[in-house]
Amino acid sequence: MRLIAHMVAAAMALVGGIASVGVAPVRADEGIAAGFGTVLPPGYRDWRLISVAHEEGKLNDIRAILGNDIAVKAFRDGTLPFPDGAIIARLAWNYVSSEENNKAFGGPQSFVAGTPTNVQFMLKDSRKYASTGGWGFVQFDDGKPVEAARLSGCFACHVPVKARDFVFTKYSP
Amino acid sequence: MRLIAHMVAAAMALVGGIASVGVAPVRADEGIAAGFGTVLPPGYRDWRLISVAHEEGKLNDIRAILGNDIAVKAFRDGTLPFPDGAIIARLAWNYVSSEENNKAFGGPQSFVAGTPTNVQFMLKDSRKYASTGGWGFVQFDDGKPVEAARLSGCFACHVPVKARDFVFTKYSP
Repeated sequence: MRLIAHMVAAAMALVGGIASVGVAPVRADEGIAAGFGTVLPPGYRDWRLISVAHEEGKLNDIRAILGNDIAVKAFRDGTLPFPDGAIIARLAWNYVSSEENNKAFGGPQSFVAGTPTNVQFMLKDSRKYASTGGWGFVQFDDGKPVEAARLSGCFACHVPVKARDFVFTKYSP
Repeated sequence: MRLIAHMVAAAMALVGGIASVGVAPVRADEGIAAGFGTVLPPGYRDWRLISVAHEEGKLNDIRAILGNDIAVKAFRDGTLPFPDGAIIARLAWNYVSSEENNKAFGGPQSFVAGTPTNVQFMLKDSRKYASTGGWGFVQFDDGKPVEAARLSGCFACHVPVKARDFVFTKYSP
């Protein structure tokens, strides 16, 4: 039975391979996917905005969620699950009060982005990351990838939003 | 009188057309500048991120500041004053607590972007807006421009940051 299962799996992989050759790869970020987790995705700071958020507590940050072209198109079209090649970036900065802005507004009300904390990415590759909902999770501190052990909890935390393909952020028009 | 007014307007448009041909337009967003204040700058939601902020008080919003290519390049290069054609967009959304995120984080700490409030733009045109530091200020509510009277206070509020060419927001890496 196991052998048959392996043969079926191999045949399916072959069919998948042929299919993808036949279709000709059109993914814009294949190079990024190859180096995912080892280097910051090139050009991520130029990606388009998905939304923003503020986390209190230990994080105490203000954050922006950006996406590569595949991710942004999926958000705008409401495509679920996200297509392979989609990458979502979460940038965060220390949450700081702005005295300068407060003076202009006439009251203590303004909070802005201070120094960066870290950058996290989710990459969709339904085969490579099949065991974690098709998403690979990485984090960079000061431009360097953090060790895998620190990422072991990422997927479990995202399970409550399985209905949105494990993505918390909603697109802000 | 009406006919004369139309003829004057037509002549001015013609002169404007000749002038822009003579100068040889090199600005990437001339079309946007021409319609500035009457229609939302086309494609502004695709512009790159400059920074994020949160305003408490009456505003009670979370916001993203985006820039067109000229503005983003100037921010990154530290160019002051901003070159003509630079446009800075301030998008804002109602500041809402996210129960979904709070459950994932295990505490009431997460705030996200709700429905949009309004969108504001600053366009640099050192000649056209010479009396307000070279910046034109506009605001759109539900995609429609607000009346000029509501914009009369914009420039005065920005004067305290004259040293940064009247721009509050700093670029967040």
